[in-house]
Amino acid sequence: MSVQIVLGSKSDRKVAEKATSVLKELGVKYKVSVASAHRTPELVERLVAEADAEVFIAIAGLSAALPGVIAARTHKPVIGVPVSGALNLDAILSIVQMPPGIPVAAVGLDRGENAAILAAQILSLKDGRIAEALEAHRQRLKENVAKDSQEVEM
Amino acid sequence: MSVQIVLGSKSDRKVAEKATSVLKELGVKYKVSVASAHRTPELVERLVAEADAEVFIAIAGLSAALPGVIAARTHKPVIGVPVSGALNLDAILSIVQMPPGIPVAAVGLDRGENAAILAAQILSLKDGRIAEALEAHRQRLKENVAKDSQEVEM
Amino acid sequence: MSVQIVLGSKSDRKVAEKATSVLKELGVKYKVSVASAHRTPELVERLVAEADAEVFIAIAGLSAALPGVIAARTHKPVIGVPVSGALNLDAILSIVQMPPGIPVAAVGLDRGENAAILAAQILSLKDGRIAEALEAHRQRLKENVAKDSQEVEM
Amino acid sequence: MSVQIVLGSKSDRKVAEKATSVLKELGVKYKVSVASAHRTPELVERLVAEADAEVFIAIAGLSAALPGVIAARTHKPVIGVPVSGALNLDAILSIVQMPPGIPVAAVGLDRGENAAILAAQILSLKDGRIAEALEAHRQRLKENVAKDSQEVEM
Amino acid sequence: MSVQIVLGSKSDRKVAEKATSVLKELGVKYKVSVASAHRTPELVERLVAEADAEVFIAIAGLSAALPGVIAARTHKPVIGVPVSGALNLDAILSIVQMPPGIPVAAVGLDRGENAAILAAQILSLKDGRIAEALEAHRQRLKENVAKDSQEVEM
Amino acid sequence: MSVQIVLGSKSDRKVAEKATSVLKELGVKYKVSVASAHRTPELVERLVAEADAEVFIAIAGLSAALPGVIAARTHKPVIGVPVSGALNLDAILSIVQMPPGIPVAAVGLDRGENAAILAAQILSLKDGRIAEALEAHRQRLKENVAKDSQEVEM
Amino acid sequence: MSVQIVLGSKSDRKVAEKATSVLKELGVKYKVSVASAHRTPELVERLVAEADAEVFIAIAGLSAALPGVIAARTHKPVIGVPVSGALNLDAILSIVQMPPGIPVAAVGLDRGENAAILAAQILSLKDGRIAEALEAHRQRLKENVAKDSQEVEM
Amino acid sequence: MSVQIVLGSKSDRKVAEKATSVLKELGVKYKVSVASAHRTPELVERLVAEADAEVFIAIAGLSAALPGVIAARTHKPVIGVPVSGALNLDAILSIVQMPPGIPVAAVGLDRGENAAILAAQILSLKDGRIAEALEAHRQRLKENVAKDSQEVEM
Repeated sequence: MSVQIVLGSKSDRKVAEKATSVLKELGVKYKVSVASAHRTPELVERLVAEADAEVFIAIAGLSAALPGVIAARTHKPVIGVPVSGALNLDAILSIVQMPPGIPVAAVGLDRGENAAILAAQILSLKDGRIAEALEAHRQRLKENVAKDSQEVEM
Repeated sequence: MSVQIVLGSKSDRKVAEKATSVLKELGVKYKVSVASAHRTPELVERLVAEADAEVFIAIAGLSAALPGVIAARTHKPVIGVPVSGALNLDAILSIVQMPPGIPVAAVGLDRGENAAILAAQILSLKDGRIAEALEAHRQRLKENVAKDSQEVEM
Repeated sequence: MSVQIVLGSKSDRKVAEKATSVLKELGVKYKVSVASAHRTPELVERLVAEADAEVFIAIAGLSAALPGVIAARTHKPVIGVPVSGALNLDAILSIVQMPPGIPVAAVGLDRGENAAILAAQILSLKDGRIAEALEAHRQRLKENVAKDSQEVEM
Repeated sequence: MSVQIVLGSKSDRKVAEKATSVLKELGVKYKVSVASAHRTPELVERLVAEADAEVFIAIAGLSAALPGVIAARTHKPVIGVPVSGALNLDAILSIVQMPPGIPVAAVGLDRGENAAILAAQILSLKDGRIAEALEAHRQRLKENVAKDSQEVEM
Repeated sequence: MSVQIVLGSKSDRKVAEKATSVLKELGVKYKVSVASAHRTPELVERLVAEADAEVFIAIAGLSAALPGVIAARTHKPVIGVPVSGALNLDAILSIVQMPPGIPVAAVGLDRGENAAILAAQILSLKDGRIAEALEAHRQRLKENVAKDSQEVEM
Repeated sequence: MSVQIVLGSKSDRKVAEKATSVLKELGVKYKVSVASAHRTPELVERLVAEADAEVFIAIAGLSAALPGVIAARTHKPVIGVPVSGALNLDAILSIVQMPPGIPVAAVGLDRGENAAILAAQILSLKDGRIAEALEAHRQRLKENVAKDSQEVEM
Repeated sequence: MSVQIVLGSKSDRKVAEKATSVLKELGVKYKVSVASAHRTPELVERLVAEADAEVFIAIAGLSAALPGVIAARTHKPVIGVPVSGALNLDAILSIVQMPPGIPVAAVGLDRGENAAILAAQILSLKDGRIAEALEAHRQRLKENVAKDSQEVEM
Repeated sequence: MSVQIVLGSKSDRKVAEKATSVLKELGVKYKVSVASAHRTPELVERLVAEADAEVFIAIAGLSAALPGVIAARTHKPVIGVPVSGALNLDAILSIVQMPPGIPVAAVGLDRGENAAILAAQILSLKDGRIAEALEAHRQRLKENVAKDSQEVEM
């Protein structure tokens, strides 16, 4: 089982690294490609057709058509990550406001790590080891908050 | 396998019906409850703890904390549906802009049907019949568009 | 010479009629089809490949990917018309904020008539009769404003 | 009498320091903790249950559920401070747009000092010394404006 | 102990009635006046000087200066309720975005009932009967949600 | 004849300097004061009552009540200048969206120079020398654009 | 002395009537014309050149270029009134955000009456009778608020 | 055949350079001028009347009236490029939201390169060499994406 990550542009790389870093930690396999819905539509199409993955993560900014264009060509869950820019609302609304029939699962602006966790949650329905990794990951989050609370003494 | 739908308020009912109508069509079992993150937090907590479901759909408007509050207490995928109101951006951003570590899968404003399809896509990773139902569902969508194209003669 | 109009959904019909009514008046040939970037991507692709038109007008609401998806597959000018809904900014920004390399010519919200005039302006570079029709059309606009000014006596 | 300050994340520290600095000046006791509505919901719950305070100040950014989640579990006044980020409107609207029945008292973006003054105004209903401290504090504000007016000579 | 409610205009009456209806239910005394920060500034000033109340609720739309103008002339807590109109963000931001030193406690758009509950929460610090009334009020909210959950069977 | 400039805070100084620099150039007398609608309401009131000026320019950010509060206490024209910050729309809408009966003349964000020119246009109705200065000022603007056009050779 | 009112379109009539009704009440002469910055630019130009008025009021919606286009061709004060539509922010920002050098005095959305009062305030610098009419007008506003306060008894 | 580029201000130069750089690459002739719709309306008018070009590109920020003012005086296609600033939505909406009858073809914020490509697409209807240059240009875009995909290995 694995995740196919697609970046709309090389400049979205930092957001993708947040995703891959969490996927590694959770023991989830993934592949990363760059393919633009607008500049290389055939490449996106081929990527979707050939992808040997259970979940897609599509990362894009501006008029972020990429997640929707992938969702239009697969029945697998597609997670969309809007990338920040001059407006931010353009990418968020382009990814969230999909028409009836073709859902995209939008996460927050630049929130690559949440796309990874969501992908892992989906895969964990079939793979118990991922479920355990998710539990451990959240346990660490909780411990970090507890530590922060001790440090913050004013 | 099933989906637990949670409405933040009885007034979100119309959006929930879009979801249940699609889930029925796809042959996916579901349960619907009303539970408010702000008015009945213990009820939400109990619902999450006791739910015998693989995926959650949380439907809420205004400062729509419900999807995030559910996501905070489960490792299962949580789909959030913002409900329209005077502002719309309040519900959309409350659901999309989750902090690192706790993802919610946001779909579009009032888009109950897309929450249902996304839930079915997730469940279809384990259940081949749902995968087939999804394919048939999209086929009907495509045929409707084709029919529409013939009707629209100007 | 002609214009290919594409509607993302039958519900965008009213905006399309504004366009066709002006095209008729200007003596510009056109064809209207319904094809959704998200529900029928192959249909959009085929439409673009087979279209015997010099200019495209794409009309869509919500996450309005249609104009961009058409622009990604042609070198001909593509005019995008955002359709009003609960948010309006979603359709406007999805159509305006195209990435570098793939332009869409966005006109205003529900502004089908302006898409038609822009298409005619483009075609008029090759066809003098359309240029004359445009001049006559604007002359009528001017006369209407003059008449309005007389009527408005307060 | 005292104030319980809760930060959604250690990164909200600067806003909290504006609050604690004013509370010190006004002679109001306080305690500061970090507890995330999404990452450590049980911690928030415990904090609210055990807090020996008359007023809560909750400081959070993004989908800022923290103030509402605290308000859902107490009858004491809860003041919410939205923290600035890429969008700003997400945190403001998440805190302001609470559903009927569960109020949060929202102050401005990053406005920790105003949360402190509002908390002091509430406590001053029972404690005359805080009322006097508030009067002195505002007197200093007025004198600063007067001084500024002299300096600004153009 | 009592609450002074101030409406910026008679047209804000519906929002005020949501507040008075809840205050009655909670057994909190109140007085209602109309006074505009822009049309009758001296009236607002006199109202604040003479008010025999522990808390102010100021209800206003558009450039909603009223809550801030009251807060500028008292050390008592001032709750601001933005009233809906063509923009909504104008009233919300005018009330939320107060400068350092002069807080207003903003509640949601048209949320008169939440202003009332917040006022009662503040007064309950001194009056145990109000605290009990608040508990009973929330208990009813919880029961309503439970009833709604039973009714919503799809 | 003269202009009274009021700054809501010393931090609005840069915007005020744009105004005073233009007023000097146009030969219009002015006085600058700092007075906050929220922190020093009595000072604003006194300033308005005692001002020996024909026009007011009020410069403020955030919930920018200052221009409206001045307009509420005078029949002379009041020009409002919104000052940029984290949101920008808060200051713009607070100044533009005045209720019926009490106008403020809003100019653009940080546009102190335009407030000065507008004030001079108003005063020029009585003073022909200011009218001439305005003409000369715009002539220089035109010449600058012409010069810019020559420089920009690509 | 008089005011020249210009409507961008006959559909802006209702907003113009708010202005003319107040101007009549204040005893200020005016003339109303329809002239579109985009459809009849020469007409706008001629209107400005020939207008025998001290102040302009320009009323327009959408991309409301009319006030700015008038301001570009006169040194007299130009008041801009944004007209409401599907977006509202388009007209407000088009009128407020003028470049350095060419001010427009923006009033609120659909706020024709405020444009009239502002025009009268400007003219009253030369005409004492208008100053008196303004004082009487505001006195009536104040009395209306007082009456409203008595009526609103809850 | 050629393109006339008009900048509203010298400060829009960077966006214009994106356009000219692409036009050069595509072998399209162009001329660049600075002319402000608000500061030099006669210059804009003269420029439009005398321009020996088939397409206009107008680049402007703030209340970006320039593209519309040009479109009001020609029947040739006018492409508008909004320039980024403190708000961004002001320039985008001013250019997109044109009234019925006078279209502007809006491209994205600061998207000079897309204005150039759109202009070339329009001209290519008459000039086959430009059509070939466009094809080569997009081919390079595609190859760059392919190269990026290889580089991004995480």
